[in-house]
Amino acid sequence: MQKQNMTVNKDLQYERSRCTFDPIEITYFFDGSPEKVEQRRKQERYFLDDPQLKQNIPLKCRSHKEVYEESLRTACIVLSKVKELQLSGKAGVELYIHTFGARLGSALFQDGNPLSLHYAMFIPAIMGQGTSEQQEYWLTRAVTGDIIGTYAQVICIGLETTATYDPKTKEFILNSPTLTSYKWWPGGLGHTANHAIVVAQLYTQGECKGVHPFIIQLRDVNTHEPLKGIIIGEIGTKLGMNGTNNGFLGFRNFRIPRENMLMQNSKVLEDGTYIKSVNDKLTYGTMVFVRVMLLQDLLHYLMKAVTIAVRYSVVRRQGQINSEKSEVQIIDYVMQQYKLFPHIATCFAIKVTFTHVWNMYVIVQGQLHEDDFEKLPELHSLTCCLKAVISADTAAGVEQLRLSCGGHGYMNASNLPIIYGLATAVCTYEGENTVLLLQTARYLVKSWKQALNGQPLPESVNYLNEAAKGIKQHPWNNDLECFIEAYDAVASGTIRLATENIDRRIHNGVPSEEAWNQTSIELSDCAVAHCRAFIVKTIVKTIKQSTLGSDEFREVLLQLNELYIVYWILRNYGAFLQFSSMKKEDVQVLQSRLEYLLMKIRRNAVGIVDGFDIDDDILCSALGAYDGNVYERLFQEAMKSPLNNETVNISFKKYLKPFIKSNL
Amino acid sequence: MQKQNMTVNKDLQYERSRCTFDPIEITYFFDGSPEKVEQRRKQERYFLDDPQLKQNIPLKCRSHKEVYEESLRTACIVLSKVKELQLSGKAGVELYIHTFGARLGSALFQDGNPLSLHYAMFIPAIMGQGTSEQQEYWLTRAVTGDIIGTYAQVICIGLETTATYDPKTKEFILNSPTLTSYKWWPGGLGHTANHAIVVAQLYTQGECKGVHPFIIQLRDVNTHEPLKGIIIGEIGTKLGMNGTNNGFLGFRNFRIPRENMLMQNSKVLEDGTYIKSVNDKLTYGTMVFVRVMLLQDLLHYLMKAVTIAVRYSVVRRQGQINSEKSEVQIIDYVMQQYKLFPHIATCFAIKVTFTHVWNMYVIVQGQLHEDDFEKLPELHSLTCCLKAVISADTAAGVEQLRLSCGGHGYMNASNLPIIYGLATAVCTYEGENTVLLLQTARYLVKSWKQALNGQPLPESVNYLNEAAKGIKQHPWNNDLECFIEAYDAVASGTIRLATENIDRRIHNGVPSEEAWNQTSIELSDCAVAHCRAFIVKTIVKTIKQSTLGSDEFREVLLQLNELYIVYWILRNYGAFLQFSSMKKEDVQVLQSRLEYLLMKIRRNAVGIVDGFDIDDDILCSALGAYDGNVYERLFQEAMKSPLNNETVNISFKKYLKPFIKSNL
Repeated sequence: MQKQNMTVNKDLQYERSRCTFDPIEITYFFDGSPEKVEQRRKQERYFLDDPQLKQNIPLKCRSHKEVYEESLRTACIVLSKVKELQLSGKAGVELYIHTFGARLGSALFQDGNPLSLHYAMFIPAIMGQGTSEQQEYWLTRAVTGDIIGTYAQVICIGLETTATYDPKTKEFILNSPTLTSYKWWPGGLGHTANHAIVVAQLYTQGECKGVHPFIIQLRDVNTHEPLKGIIIGEIGTKLGMNGTNNGFLGFRNFRIPRENMLMQNSKVLEDGTYIKSVNDKLTYGTMVFVRVMLLQDLLHYLMKAVTIAVRYSVVRRQGQINSEKSEVQIIDYVMQQYKLFPHIATCFAIKVTFTHVWNMYVIVQGQLHEDDFEKLPELHSLTCCLKAVISADTAAGVEQLRLSCGGHGYMNASNLPIIYGLATAVCTYEGENTVLLLQTARYLVKSWKQALNGQPLPESVNYLNEAAKGIKQHPWNNDLECFIEAYDAVASGTIRLATENIDRRIHNGVPSEEAWNQTSIELSDCAVAHCRAFIVKTIVKTIKQSTLGSDEFREVLLQLNELYIVYWILRNYGAFLQFSSMKKEDVQVLQSRLEYLLMKIRRNAVGIVDGFDIDDDILCSALGAYDGNVYERLFQEAMKSPLNNETVNISFKKYLKPFIKSNL
Repeated sequence: MQKQNMTVNKDLQYERSRCTFDPIEITYFFDGSPEKVEQRRKQERYFLDDPQLKQNIPLKCRSHKEVYEESLRTACIVLSKVKELQLSGKAGVELYIHTFGARLGSALFQDGNPLSLHYAMFIPAIMGQGTSEQQEYWLTRAVTGDIIGTYAQVICIGLETTATYDPKTKEFILNSPTLTSYKWWPGGLGHTANHAIVVAQLYTQGECKGVHPFIIQLRDVNTHEPLKGIIIGEIGTKLGMNGTNNGFLGFRNFRIPRENMLMQNSKVLEDGTYIKSVNDKLTYGTMVFVRVMLLQDLLHYLMKAVTIAVRYSVVRRQGQINSEKSEVQIIDYVMQQYKLFPHIATCFAIKVTFTHVWNMYVIVQGQLHEDDFEKLPELHSLTCCLKAVISADTAAGVEQLRLSCGGHGYMNASNLPIIYGLATAVCTYEGENTVLLLQTARYLVKSWKQALNGQPLPESVNYLNEAAKGIKQHPWNNDLECFIEAYDAVASGTIRLATENIDRRIHNGVPSEEAWNQTSIELSDCAVAHCRAFIVKTIVKTIKQSTLGSDEFREVLLQLNELYIVYWILRNYGAFLQFSSMKKEDVQVLQSRLEYLLMKIRRNAVGIVDGFDIDDDILCSALGAYDGNVYERLFQEAMKSPLNNETVNISFKKYLKPFIKSNL
C-alpha cells in the first residue's frame, strides 16, 4: 500500500478537528518518549522507503513457492540493511526485534520470515546452552551469517528423535525411528537453514538421559544439498505465515561428533559418562522472556486491526438511524462502538501490563544470575496466563474487528485476514493456551492452600490471603475500588471452589491427578479470572502513579481503563453475581456506564488510533489508510491482481466456451 | 485426500469396538431414511471417483490466477456431469444444491465455485422477477448454459448504480457516478459471467422510483470481451472462497432495451410511465428461503470440523495425566472434551432446528401463493436470528475445533482453516449478523408490547404472554422442564428490560430511533436469548415426539441435547441468575451435570462422528480421515507441495548464497 497524494476524507478530517487532545501524547505513551518516537519512525522509513522492498504483486496472489522465494529475497535485503545500520553504529540488537516483530516485520514480510529463527532461537540457544568453546566456534559463524540455523524443539514426550552415543567413534548417532518422531514445524527448516539445533533423547551407556540439545549440519554449505541421512522438506501451506518455510526433519543413522552436543548444562564425556546439569531452572528464564515478548507482538496486531476498523467505520456510511436524515457513519451505531472500543482499551491494557511484567522480568533475570530463584515461579505463572489470555483476547478481537468491517473485512486488501492469521497462531505456539492456563492454575491452587495455612504469598496472589481469612468484599458501590475488589473476589472465589472440588473428588477416591483433570474446566476459569484481576489492578495502579501528559489525555486514559474494567465484568457477570458483592440491580447500572463510556470515547476514537502512529506502509490496508480513501484504494489493490492484467482469461477458451457449446 | 489401503489406527479401532449403538442410526437421522443415505452416497461417489476431478497439486499451493482457472475447469466438469445425470433421469434440481453446497460442493471446489451464482441466483431471479415472456426468452438461454449470469445486488442505499429511462430510444441508460456506486462482490462477475442481473436505482420521467432489477449483457458471447461502457474485473484475494471469482462492475452510459427490466412486479411503460408493484412481500419469501438453506450449509461445515477434531483427538497422544502411565489420548482431557462435544451437540441442534423451520417455510410459502401473509413476519424474524446465531456459533465452533488440534490445526492439510474461511463468510453475507439480530429484536419488542396489551401472539413468541401476565418461573429443580422455563424467562426478561430502557430514553426526550440505537447492545442480546430459547424448545419437543431408532441411539440423542441446554446456561449464567429462578448454588450442580455428560459422551464420540458419514474425499483432512493415519497423511500432503519437488530451491543461488558471501 503506497502513499498517495489523495485528499483526506472529509469525515475523517472532521473527526480529527474535534479530537479533545493531541494524538502525539498517545504516541509518546506507547513509545516511551519523543526521542524514541523519532528513532522508531526513522528506522521504519529506512526500510519502507527502499524500492527493493516494495511489492507490486500482492503476496496473496502468488503461489506457495513464489511466496517462499519472495520472502527469502526480502529477508536477505532486510538483514543486509540491518547489518549496514549496525556497522555504522546507528542501531543495536533491538533492530532485529523491530524488523522481525509484529509491527514493522509483519509489514515487510507480509506473511512470515524464513530467517527469523536463525536470529530469534538458533543464536540465543547457542549463547544459552553452549560452553564457551562452543560459543566461540559456532557464534562467529552464525552471527556473520556464514551458517544459517534453525531450532527444532521436541513436540511429543514419548516417541522422538534419539541421539545415541557411540564411544568407539566419539559420535552421536541420530535416528527418527517413526514418522511421529520427525521434527515438524521449525521455521526456515524446509529449504533455508543449513544447520539446526535439535533437541533429542540422549542415550549413553545403554541408558536414556532425557532430552538434550545438539547442533547439527543439515545441508552442504556450498551446494545446499541435504546431507546423507537427513530427510528434509517443507510442511505445506497453512492458515498464515506461509513465508516462514516451516519444515520437517528426520534422521537415518546420522552421525555427529561428540562436541556437537551443547554442553553448558549437562555433558557426555568421551567415554560416554553422563554428567547431569546442576540447575535447569535457567531454561525457564528463556520461556518467560519469549512469552513476555509475545505480549508486545500481540499489542501490535491489535493496534493495527483497531486502527483499520475505526477509520473504516468513520468513512463507511450505511443505513439510517433516523429515516429522514442521510446515511449514518457506521461508527455512530452503538453496536459498532461496542465492537470497536473495547479493543482500543485492550491495547492500553496490554501495553501497561507488558511494561509491568517486563520490569518484573528484568529484576528476576538479575536474581537468576545470582542463583536466586525465589521469584521465578510467580513470574512464570503470570506469564503463562498472560500469554494465554492476551493471545485469546487479541485473536478474538482482531476477528471481531474484521467482522465489524462487513464484507470488506473479508478481503485481504483490508489486511485483517492476514493479521488474524498471525495473531491466532500465538494461541498455539510457545505453549498452547489451555496448557498454560492449567500451569497457572496449579500455582494458584498451591497458593490458595498456602493462604489457608496462613503462609505469606507473593504480591500477585496476595489477595488470596484476604480471601482465606474469610474477609468478604465491601458492599457494592460502583467505584473503581469496588470493581477491583470484585475482580479479586471472583478470582479467589473460583480458586476456592475449584480447590474444594478437587479435594472432594480425591476424598471420593479419585486419584489426585485424575481429580485435577476432572476439575480442569473450572481450573482454567481460575487462571483467566486471576489474570483478568491482575491486568485490572495493574492498569489502575499505573494510571494512578503516572503523572504524564495533559489532563485531556489522562481523561481519555481513564475512560479507556474504566471501559476495560466494566466491559469484562459485563462479559462475565455471572461470576460477579456468584462471588462478589455485586447484585442483580447493579447489572443495569454497569450497562449504562458502559454505554456512557462508549459515547465519551466515540469523539476521540480517530484521535486515539492516529496516536498509535502506524504508517500506511505498515498498516497495508485499503480500509485503514490515514487519508480514508477506502474505495479508491480497494480499487487500486484489486487492479494489482494478475487476473486483471487481461480482460479475458485463458480459461474462457479452454473450459467455458467448450462447456457452453456442448450445451447448445 | 485419497483413499488408501492403510490399516486403521488401533485407538480408533478400539473406540469403534466399544460404541454403544450403531452409527448408521445417526446417518439415517441426518439423511432421513436408508434410501436417502444410499442415494447420497451414490451421488457423491459419481463425482468423487471421476479422475478429472482429482487435485494433485493442493489448491492452496497455487497462485490466485491458477486457483480461478482450476475452479472454472472443475465447475464445467461438475456441471456437465450434473446435466448427464439429470438427462438420464437419475437426479433432479436438488443435485445442484448438493454439488454446490457445503458438503460435497465445498470438497469438489475446495475454495469456491465461479458458476454457483448462475444457478443459485441468476436463474431463480429470472423465475421470480421476470414476466412470462422474459422467462421464456432468458430462461431457455440460461438453463442450457448458453449465457452465464450472475446477480449484482445493491450494497449501499445512497449512492449507487442508476438506470435512467430514455423514452426516445426506449432504453435504460446505466451509470455508476462514483466509485462507491460500483457493484463489488458478485461471484463469477470477474471473468466468468457474460450476463448479470443488476439491481439499480430507477429514474423515469425525472423521478427516482427506487431499486429495480435489470438483466444486462456484460461481455461478448463469442469473444468474451467486456462490452463498451462496461468496466469489469475481479476484486482480488480474500480470506477464503478464492475460486468464486468475485468481481466489480461499473457502467458508463451503457444502454439496454426497455425489455431488459425484469417486470413481474413493477413496470416501466414505453412512454416512461411507472407502474408500482402490488405486493413486494414476495421478495421476503426468497430471503427467508436463502437463510433457511444457509443453516444446512453451516451444519455441514460444523459436522466436518467436529469429525476431524474428534478423530484426531483420539489418535493424538500428548502429556500424561498420571505420570506413571503412558501418554494420554488428548480426548481424555476433560478440557479437550469441553472443546469438542458441545459442537457435536450443536450439529444435532442445527439439524433439528433446520427441519422444523423448513417445515414452517413450506407452509408459509404455500400461504403466500394464496396471498396470506399472516405468518411471514414470525418466520422472517425467526430466520433472521437463527442465521445470525447459528453462523456465529458455527464459525466460533470451527475455530475452537481448529485450535483444539494444536499446531496441526493451523495447517491447510487439516482442512480446518479452509472450512473456517467458508463458515465465517456466512456471518456477513445474506444479511450481516448484527443487522439481522436487530431485525428480530424489533419484532420481539413489538410482540412484547402486544403481550402487555393482552393480544394473542404467534407460537414462537407465545412465552411473552405468560411473562407479561407477571407469571414467574417455578422454583429451580434441575430438570429439563425447568431449564426450558428458564430459557424463556431469560428471553422475556431481557426483552422486557430492553423495552423499558427504550421507553425510559424516549421519556427523557431522546428521539425514538436514537433511543433504539442507544439500547442496541441489549436488543441484540434479546434476539440471541430468544433464538437460544427457540432452539432449546425445538430440540426438546422433537426428541419427545420422535420414536425413531434404538434405545441406545435415543439415549445418545438425549445426552447431546441436554449437553446443549446445560452448556448454554453455563456460558451465559449471569442472565439466568438475573432473570430465571436459578440460584447461585445451582451453578455448581449444572457444572457437575456438564462434566457428567462429557464423560458419558466420551465413549461414543467416535461413533457419533462416524455416523455423520462424511467420506474421506469430502473431509479432505489429513487429521480426520477414517483410518486415523494422521502422520502418514500429513507427510503425504506435505510432499505434494511443489517446493518439495526439488531438494534445493532456486532462491538459494539467487538470494541466500550471495547474502552469506557478502557476510564473510
